[in-house]
Amino acid sequence: MKSGLTFLVAAKRCEIAELRQLALTSALVNVTGRLVHGLQRERGLSNLYLGSQGTQFADMLAQQVRTCQQTEAELRACFDSLDTDTVRQGQGARLFSRIAYVLQGLDALGGLRERIAALAWSTGQATDAYVRLIAGLLAVVFEAADSASDPEISRLLVALFNFMQGKEFAGQERALGSALFASGRADAAGQQRLLHLIDSQERCLQVFSEFGHPPVAELWAASQAGATLAELERLRRVLCTAAHGSPLNAQLSQTWFDCCSRRMDRMKGVEDRLALDLLRACEDKIAAATRELESFHALAPRPGRDADALSFFNATGAPDTPAQGYGHQLERSILELVQEQARRLQTMGEELDTVRASLNERKVIERAKGLLMAHRQLSEEAAHKTMRQMAMNQNRRLIEVAEAVLAMADVLPHSPP
Amino acid sequence: MKSGLTFLVAAKRCEIAELRQLALTSALVNVTGRLVHGLQRERGLSNLYLGSQGTQFADMLAQQVRTCQQTEAELRACFDSLDTDTVRQGQGARLFSRIAYVLQGLDALGGLRERIAALAWSTGQATDAYVRLIAGLLAVVFEAADSASDPEISRLLVALFNFMQGKEFAGQERALGSALFASGRADAAGQQRLLHLIDSQERCLQVFSEFGHPPVAELWAASQAGATLAELERLRRVLCTAAHGSPLNAQLSQTWFDCCSRRMDRMKGVEDRLALDLLRACEDKIAAATRELESFHALAPRPGRDADALSFFNATGAPDTPAQGYGHQLERSILELVQEQARRLQTMGEELDTVRASLNERKVIERAKGLLMAHRQLSEEAAHKTMRQMAMNQNRRLIEVAEAVLAMADVLPHSPP
Repeated sequence: MKSGLTFLVAAKRCEIAELRQLALTSALVNVTGRLVHGLQRERGLSNLYLGSQGTQFADMLAQQVRTCQQTEAELRACFDSLDTDTVRQGQGARLFSRIAYVLQGLDALGGLRERIAALAWSTGQATDAYVRLIAGLLAVVFEAADSASDPEISRLLVALFNFMQGKEFAGQERALGSALFASGRADAAGQQRLLHLIDSQERCLQVFSEFGHPPVAELWAASQAGATLAELERLRRVLCTAAHGSPLNAQLSQTWFDCCSRRMDRMKGVEDRLALDLLRACEDKIAAATRELESFHALAPRPGRDADALSFFNATGAPDTPAQGYGHQLERSILELVQEQARRLQTMGEELDTVRASLNERKVIERAKGLLMAHRQLSEEAAHKTMRQMAMNQNRRLIEVAEAVLAMADVLPHSPP
Repeated sequence: MKSGLTFLVAAKRCEIAELRQLALTSALVNVTGRLVHGLQRERGLSNLYLGSQGTQFADMLAQQVRTCQQTEAELRACFDSLDTDTVRQGQGARLFSRIAYVLQGLDALGGLRERIAALAWSTGQATDAYVRLIAGLLAVVFEAADSASDPEISRLLVALFNFMQGKEFAGQERALGSALFASGRADAAGQQRLLHLIDSQERCLQVFSEFGHPPVAELWAASQAGATLAELERLRRVLCTAAHGSPLNAQLSQTWFDCCSRRMDRMKGVEDRLALDLLRACEDKIAAATRELESFHALAPRPGRDADALSFFNATGAPDTPAQGYGHQLERSILELVQEQARRLQTMGEELDTVRASLNERKVIERAKGLLMAHRQLSEEAAHKTMRQMAMNQNRRLIEVAEAVLAMADVLPHSPP
């Protein structure tokens, strides 16, 4: 018959298995980040190539495509190594579903490249295609963050996801800016989108700073404080303040691209550091949990079991009162260990709820934005701007406005007003 | 190399495995409910036995103990059949940790019964001991509800958990009322606790009505509308309105016990019906998901793959836009199925967030109550009453007050004022 000790051990083994799964997922996230980085660069070069009517950048683009193909092969190998036969509980279905979507996108990448090479698609079409594929890749990272059951690792994944998302907005800014300069003429709609992308990336980087380990946040702050950012801000000003229809210096297209690329390469460095923190956190936690598990194996039910057992009813605390500071492991009773484990899991659950609240906020805001876009036929920027305006007018947080929008869903008109 | 289809299938298999796990957990919850019911009755009879100084109820108690021992053996067999070797992802650690705690309590049950038989413990001590063990059993049910990944099943588990918790408050009311009548004298503190128990059970039953299937809620409403409830309310009035210290008719102890027991047996009937709903919901969903899985197996990547694949970039919707109403399964592309699956999992996740919010509210309120009890050295009733009073004074919901209490945690004094 299985005893309390059996389940104490089983619970610990579950924790370890979850941590191992997280370590594997973190490795997957790392390769995903490298492919995203490569595709971001490929997108930018494709825009330059299309913008020059195929007269420039063909070699650089071809070389970047080869780099991406190598990373894609690595990511596919990662996917292949995922154990799809042994079924994962928890968020498995959602992660696999996101991967299925990404694989459809990777299968389509060859066709996209052919159309770009043949100048058959516009810069807008090409950008949208890369944006969609990268969004699919980032959704894999989001599921990984959402599925973590350890609060510290969840914090790091939230930081990493937001950093990667912020970097993607920076990448879209690079592509859009390249296309705007290359077109040689200022465009009010493009300027609006650019400002929206700058705003969005700043919000993401803010969340990253809150959730990442302080040294990484400092690393990012330090890498920002250079000439690149000043140059970028100057070019942003040139792009965004030019009157609609006035000429832009098309030569700045390459300058803009290089400046943005330097910044994005630095971002990749910070991202790699974040991924390293994540991997180390997983390893440390696996080691600690394994030591605890080993100490459990040294335990055995004691003699005088019944008298001992009765302390269940005398114990000072139910499993949810705060820890009292126990003595050495071997001197403790199984009951004490069981209570301590229950308390610790409960505390972890509460911390996890707090961390995941930030992911939930993101989901709620995205859902509200989607609703506004569908019901009022707004663009993403316009929907976001509407909600921000409501928040400012009503002196409320964006998340509160988003919740109010969703609560109104049933009464919103289904066709545009 | 694994394709999108492989992961589409893997995601569906994860869903099915989770549903199977839920069906097993539901069976475990069912046996747990029966043991809780038996222990509630054993607690009541123990109180009557102790209240009569061991002169009455010895045979009924002995018989009830035998019934409980049989159910305990069944529950232990259920625990034994849980696969503790194959590690469960997700909430596995917490469920196992709760089971470890319960097993410690069950090991102590023999010692508790000996002390009751020897009249060595007071009714208060005996009641507290049973309350603690039953709370441990209900925590297993709570974890089950918290771990469900399907929103409909989560709703049913939330309804079931709240019904069982409400029934436990009714059981505590029965035990306390029996002891109060048996003592032959009205007691103001006891009356306050009784009113608190009545209030708590009504809150739980309210949540049950919101989350259960309407027919079960109606079944419960119908079973309430009898002579038993009127009799119970009359006895409650006799108990609660007697002036402190005035005599109570000790003969009513048995009447009270029988009246409460009839009500609790009816509650058990409703609980069984809820458990049946749960099992059927699991079976229906497993069958539906299995049919879908089989239809996936009929699919294979089509010829003309590259041209087809490019529709990834042309598709009208990213996976998070609303469904469009698709044609027949076999006519659909894998991309459409992948998008539909992602949408469905996302919708399920959103519904689940809503359902689990009610469980989170419970956790937050309990945590805030625990904090007030620890910092202000209040009883549970007093802590609850304090929060309710704050809510009424400030015209806020109880959950909002609880959140405010937790937010104040750091500034609350650590010793009583």
